[in-house]
Amino acid sequence: MSQHTPSGGTTSGTTPTTAAGTRLDPWLGAYADRTHGMRASEIRALFAVANRPEVVSLAGGMPNLDGLPLDVIADVAQRVVATRGRTALQYGSGQGDETLREQILDVMRLEGIHAHPDDVVVTTGSQQALDLVTRLFVNPGDVIVAEAPSYVGALGVFRAYQADVVHVPLDVDGLVPAALEETLTRLAAEGRRVKLLYTVPNFHNPAGVTLSAERRPQILEICRRHGVLVLEDNPYGLLGFDGDPIPAMRSLDEDGVIYLGSFSKTFAPGYRVGWAVAPHAVREKLVLASESAILCPSNASQLAISAYLSTCDWRGQIKAFREMYRERRDAMMGALAEHLPDATWTVPDGGFYTWVRLPDGLDAKAMLPRAVTARVAYVPGTAFYADGQGSDQMRLSFCYPTPERIREGVRRLAGVVAGESELVSLFGAGLGVARGDVQAPGPDVS
Amino acid sequence: MSQHTPSGGTTSGTTPTTAAGTRLDPWLGAYADRTHGMRASEIRALFAVANRPEVVSLAGGMPNLDGLPLDVIADVAQRVVATRGRTALQYGSGQGDETLREQILDVMRLEGIHAHPDDVVVTTGSQQALDLVTRLFVNPGDVIVAEAPSYVGALGVFRAYQADVVHVPLDVDGLVPAALEETLTRLAAEGRRVKLLYTVPNFHNPAGVTLSAERRPQILEICRRHGVLVLEDNPYGLLGFDGDPIPAMRSLDEDGVIYLGSFSKTFAPGYRVGWAVAPHAVREKLVLASESAILCPSNASQLAISAYLSTCDWRGQIKAFREMYRERRDAMMGALAEHLPDATWTVPDGGFYTWVRLPDGLDAKAMLPRAVTARVAYVPGTAFYADGQGSDQMRLSFCYPTPERIREGVRRLAGVVAGESELVSLFGAGLGVARGDVQAPGPDVS
Repeated sequence: MSQHTPSGGTTSGTTPTTAAGTRLDPWLGAYADRTHGMRASEIRALFAVANRPEVVSLAGGMPNLDGLPLDVIADVAQRVVATRGRTALQYGSGQGDETLREQILDVMRLEGIHAHPDDVVVTTGSQQALDLVTRLFVNPGDVIVAEAPSYVGALGVFRAYQADVVHVPLDVDGLVPAALEETLTRLAAEGRRVKLLYTVPNFHNPAGVTLSAERRPQILEICRRHGVLVLEDNPYGLLGFDGDPIPAMRSLDEDGVIYLGSFSKTFAPGYRVGWAVAPHAVREKLVLASESAILCPSNASQLAISAYLSTCDWRGQIKAFREMYRERRDAMMGALAEHLPDATWTVPDGGFYTWVRLPDGLDAKAMLPRAVTARVAYVPGTAFYADGQGSDQMRLSFCYPTPERIREGVRRLAGVVAGESELVSLFGAGLGVARGDVQAPGPDVS
Repeated sequence: MSQHTPSGGTTSGTTPTTAAGTRLDPWLGAYADRTHGMRASEIRALFAVANRPEVVSLAGGMPNLDGLPLDVIADVAQRVVATRGRTALQYGSGQGDETLREQILDVMRLEGIHAHPDDVVVTTGSQQALDLVTRLFVNPGDVIVAEAPSYVGALGVFRAYQADVVHVPLDVDGLVPAALEETLTRLAAEGRRVKLLYTVPNFHNPAGVTLSAERRPQILEICRRHGVLVLEDNPYGLLGFDGDPIPAMRSLDEDGVIYLGSFSKTFAPGYRVGWAVAPHAVREKLVLASESAILCPSNASQLAISAYLSTCDWRGQIKAFREMYRERRDAMMGALAEHLPDATWTVPDGGFYTWVRLPDGLDAKAMLPRAVTARVAYVPGTAFYADGQGSDQMRLSFCYPTPERIREGVRRLAGVVAGESELVSLFGAGLGVARGDVQAPGPDVS
């Protein structure tokens, strides 16, 4: 066992190494095995640079809150404490406020989900639900099947529980059923235990594609046949630019799907309120796991959102968000066509992101320092794979900057790409390209 | 692998059993090993019955919020959104708001802690910090040494990470150093890996005792020598009834202690804001673990508390809480002396709880249904041990009911104890005593 002295010296049984540059970690030998894969996300760095006003950030996943009526929401917050303070400021139910859970049913009905308030568990953002579901189901070495690429924050959770992520390809209609079937059959033949299919069916983060209505029952049938629980992560489903939402996978299968929802993109992330809808027995365990993790979600946050939903035109607000993001999507698409004709990209029908494949086998991660120098930021594709794929890919977000800034950002990006392409044509791929890891503090909120 | 049909039928490879009475769980064979010890806390039941107005609850750990100026706090909440809404409603730093972290230093200075804002990690209540610290350090089968008895919510977290809890006795001066030394020496001889000492040094939950100033450096020295990290959980430290707080263990040892603090008892639990102070390298990992678990703590909650601290007399509020709780402690002590002279109990100098040992070897858990029938509730002692101890013990809380109700509750309790004692004297212990588990929904917020 390691020993330490309060002055910071160490006489550890294992050789201490320096942590974060300068200080020794006297507890280096004491960490659990699950921490070994723990590392700062590749996109943390971007939040340090992207916050500089001169940089156009096409990196972050922060929703644009400019359209929110702050004065109205402020009055809602005031009223909640003034009239219901003894509840808002107190501990609450581990499962979440019952009125809010009923209102969440109204939200989900827009995507064809019919459920009971008792099926809903309110969480500290849907990120917590991701953590809790993984905690409930995944032993170290279990397999989670996920789209290629996948949400970076989910990959981080899966790594934290020592899951093995196996990717299945996407195309413009989302996850490819034949590829899923093939993967699950292969994994079964190898004797691997597949616990979850993790999927973002609508306006995928990061790929920008949507699982077609035709494929949804096919995917569910395949998972059912292989005994795999579907984890349907749906933060963007109501942010479609055209027409009505496609019915959620959960609307087709009550017992085979855990559905995750969130107010972070349709209202505001600052309250940290998301939810899970789960089959009955799973829901009971989710509540126990959540109580162990945080006792209960914030009543102050839940009551503020509940009052917002009951007194404000939340449907109108979502419509306004959709129109704002559609305009930005259009700016992004136009700029890509104009400035990066040699790249390929997805055309999202909603949400925040497009997925770009660079020409000439360029390396998006290696190119990032040059891009930041040119005052534009993005997330390199490798961040969204568990297996090192994606070096010639990148995620561009159009949620936060104005259309004008989006166009300027893509123009700058095109300049960087042109410079890199020229180097590659002169010296070959992998040569002459600036390489470097970017490391800086900042949250991973994509 | 199990297969299921969307109608709820199941053709699981393992025999399905009924869950919660009526429904089959098609995923029964899919849960992770860590869920096997997951169960509803023994005190969940109490929140269903204790909420009935006719029952005097001496069970819960909910702070009494009657003294809070709700109108003032409501205005604070309004101002935060109206003037800082774009921050309050947005994602924030994974480590927590920097201004709030500086204010937390002011709070901790009252207990002699000198730290840097960078040492502080804001969490969703200190329960989340408990979860994250355990996640960072504990492999299945690792040992956590904890007081006998210990906080039930911590025991739940330790069980969720498959830790083995080994208890060390307390006396009226808190954790007994010689017993700790003996336990750690024995565990080392057995080749067991001890990762943490979990301790609530001030106004212990549930025991009501405080670790004396003399013992604090002794405990730290023993842990240092054995290479054991101290997890100092201190939600009640500022709620002492007499004199100044005893310096925190963290004030004596920066590198050997992770300190947990909370606004839940000194302000309000409804915002779910707690914090951890950790050695530098541990703190970095805590932030990564928290980002994986929830992305970031709520900015809305953090900014509301930050504005409360900067614009309200929070020290005066704590003083008012101390006086209120002291009066209730006095009512509890007086009533115990008057009505339960054959029992023994601790005399807390602060906090929420006293720990009672019943006469005649009565079984507190078996007696609970009778107590509830007599309209008084408490938490049976067994809830606070990992090893089945504590059957003749119970926790009584004096935080929530009025002094008058506390006296009435103890009077009712004494009637139940007298009845049980009579049965025991007639038929012997274990006979004639109503037994039954109480199961009902409700959060474990003690």
